[in-house]
Amino acid sequence: MKHASFENGVVEMSHGAGGRDMADLIQRLFVAAFGNDLLTGEEDQAILSFPAGRMAVSTDGFVVSPLFFPGGDIGSLAVNGTVNDVAMGGADPVALTCSFIIEEGLPLADLSRIVASMAGAARAAGVRIVTGDTKVVERGKGDGVFITTTGFGQVREGVSLSARNAQPGDKVLVSGTLGDHGVAVMGSREGFDFQTDIVSDCAALNGLAAAVLDAAPSTRLMRDPTRGGLAAVLNEIAEASGVGISIAEEALPIRPAVAGACEILGLDPLYVANEGKLVAIVPAAEAEAALSAMRAHPLGIDAAIVGEVGEDPDHFVEMETAFGGRRMVDWIAGEQLPRIC
Amino acid sequence: MKHASFENGVVEMSHGAGGRDMADLIQRLFVAAFGNDLLTGEEDQAILSFPAGRMAVSTDGFVVSPLFFPGGDIGSLAVNGTVNDVAMGGADPVALTCSFIIEEGLPLADLSRIVASMAGAARAAGVRIVTGDTKVVERGKGDGVFITTTGFGQVREGVSLSARNAQPGDKVLVSGTLGDHGVAVMGSREGFDFQTDIVSDCAALNGLAAAVLDAAPSTRLMRDPTRGGLAAVLNEIAEASGVGISIAEEALPIRPAVAGACEILGLDPLYVANEGKLVAIVPAAEAEAALSAMRAHPLGIDAAIVGEVGEDPDHFVEMETAFGGRRMVDWIAGEQLPRIC
Repeated sequence: MKHASFENGVVEMSHGAGGRDMADLIQRLFVAAFGNDLLTGEEDQAILSFPAGRMAVSTDGFVVSPLFFPGGDIGSLAVNGTVNDVAMGGADPVALTCSFIIEEGLPLADLSRIVASMAGAARAAGVRIVTGDTKVVERGKGDGVFITTTGFGQVREGVSLSARNAQPGDKVLVSGTLGDHGVAVMGSREGFDFQTDIVSDCAALNGLAAAVLDAAPSTRLMRDPTRGGLAAVLNEIAEASGVGISIAEEALPIRPAVAGACEILGLDPLYVANEGKLVAIVPAAEAEAALSAMRAHPLGIDAAIVGEVGEDPDHFVEMETAFGGRRMVDWIAGEQLPRIC
Repeated sequence: MKHASFENGVVEMSHGAGGRDMADLIQRLFVAAFGNDLLTGEEDQAILSFPAGRMAVSTDGFVVSPLFFPGGDIGSLAVNGTVNDVAMGGADPVALTCSFIIEEGLPLADLSRIVASMAGAARAAGVRIVTGDTKVVERGKGDGVFITTTGFGQVREGVSLSARNAQPGDKVLVSGTLGDHGVAVMGSREGFDFQTDIVSDCAALNGLAAAVLDAAPSTRLMRDPTRGGLAAVLNEIAEASGVGISIAEEALPIRPAVAGACEILGLDPLYVANEGKLVAIVPAAEAEAALSAMRAHPLGIDAAIVGEVGEDPDHFVEMETAFGGRRMVDWIAGEQLPRIC
C-alpha cells in the first residue's frame, strides 16, 4: 500500500479514500482556502441558521474544457454559475456547497489555483462555501476535475419569478454583450489566437439582479443565458408562458470581436453561452427603470431592451433581422458547443 | 448537426447541450420519475418554504464502480448517502438536489433504472428531489455516470451534534453489521461469486437517527461510517474531540460471510465502507436506552455497544483483540477501496 502525500505533486487515488491523505488534502487545500466558522473539515454537514421564509436552491455540475480559459476557470465558473441561478430566482445567495470529482494525476498546482479562484469568486459574491466532498477517479475515467456546486439563499419578500410569468406587451432586456464566454472557451480550446481580448464574462449577478428588482419590482422573471444562449432561454420562456417573443437583431449587444470570432468558428452568438449576463422580462411600464438600473451597475453598462413578448399560439421566438426580414430563432437541435460550462 | 433523440438508446452529447434534446431528457426521464410540485423542469432553481431555525446541509459526489451492485446502485446510494449525512447532523432531511455528469454512450436503459432507483429511495426516505442538472462528457472522459446530491433539513431543537463532543466515559455504539456495502461492491467488481447473500446495506438512516435522539437526547454525535469505515470515523472523532477510543473486537457485529470475504479479498472490515449504519457516541447513562432504540428499529436489530471513549493525549484508537491483546486502529494510509461510493 503506497502512502500518497503531497510530495508527488499530483492528486492520487488515496486523496479520495477517506483516510489520512484525504484529511490532509481537505485541511491543507480546501479548508485553508475556503475556511470559515462553518467549514472546519471535521463534519459531514454544515449547520447554519436560516430565517423563516422561502428558500431558493440550485445545483449545477461544471465540466468545462479546458479547465482554464481567458477570463476565468472552472472554479470561478462553478461559484458564479450557481450564485447566478439562485439570484435569478429572486433570492439573495448566502451559501454554497461544492463536490469535487478529480481525475487521478491532476497536478495539485492546478487544483490549488482552481480552489483559490473559487475562494475569490465566493468572496466577491458575498457567499460562503460551507461544506464539500472530494472523490478521486482513476486516470482516464474523468477529465481533470468536475465540480458540482449547490447554492441557496432567501427569496426576497413579495417576489415570485417564474418562466411562466411572461405576458404579451412585456419587454425583453439583456444586461450586456452576448457570447463572450462561449467564444472565449471555444477559442482557447481550438487554440485560436484571436489577437483580441475576448474573455469570458464569468461574474456573479446577485448584485445586478437585486438592482433590477429594486428598480422594477414587477419584473416577471430573470434568467442567465448559459448553455444554449439567449435562444434557449427565450424558447423556454415562450413555451412555459404560452407566448411568442420577438427580438430585433440590431438591438442585440454583441462585441465586434465576438461577432467576428463567431463567423470564423461557425457559431451563432444567439446560441452561445454567457456566464455573467441576465435576461429579464419586465412589464413595459417598468422597462426603462430596469434598463437604467442595469446600466448604472458595472456589470450592466451594455444593457439593452432587445425585444417584446407577444401573443402566439405556436410559442415561437422570432428575430427581425438587420435587413428588415424575420427569421425563426428555434431551439438548437443537437450539440453546438459541448462542455462550455 | 445531428439531431439526437431517444432512438439510439444511449445518452448523446446533445442531451447535455441546453437545447431541445436536453429538455426532452429532463421531462421524459427526470421529471417523470422525480416530479413534484417543485420540480417542473422549467426553472433553474427550486423555491421552497423553510421554517426559521438551523439548517443542516450536506453534499456528496458518487462515483461508485460498478454502477449496479448487490443491494443497490449508484442511484439509491446517491440518495441515501446524502440523506444520511443530513440526518447525522441531527436534522430531518426534507429535500435533495441532484447533478448528473454522464458519459456519452451510457445506455438510456441504465440511466432510467438509476433514476427509478433514486425516486424509490427518495420516497422511502421521505425526501423530495427538488432541482437538478445534467451534463454530458465525451466517451472516455467520464465513467458511465457520476451523481452529486446535496441535501438539507431542519436541525432538531436543542440538538447540537459534533465530532468535537465526545467525552471520556461515553459509549460507542454501532447500529449493525460492518462492511456489508464495501464487500458487496468489491465482490461484484472483482467478479467474485461468494455463493452467499452479501448485499450492500444501503439505506436511509433518518428514521433510525431520530429514534436514537428520541431515546438518548444527550447523544454527543452520530456518524455514518462510509469511506474508510469505522476506523476512519473513530479516528476523526478522537482527533476532533481530543480523546482516545477503545473498542472490543468481540463486540463488533460482522456477518460471518463478510468476515470470510474480507479474508479472501485481503480487507479489514474495520476499514470497509458501510452505507446503512451509524456510529453514535452516547453518554454512559443513556447508552442502554440508545441501544434499545436501535434494536427496536428494523435497521438496527444487530446494534451493539462496541467501545468506550477515554482520555488519551495521543488521541489513539485501539482495539482489544479477541485474544486479549491490544492493537492500534490507525488511519488508513493510501487507498484501500477506491470508488466504493
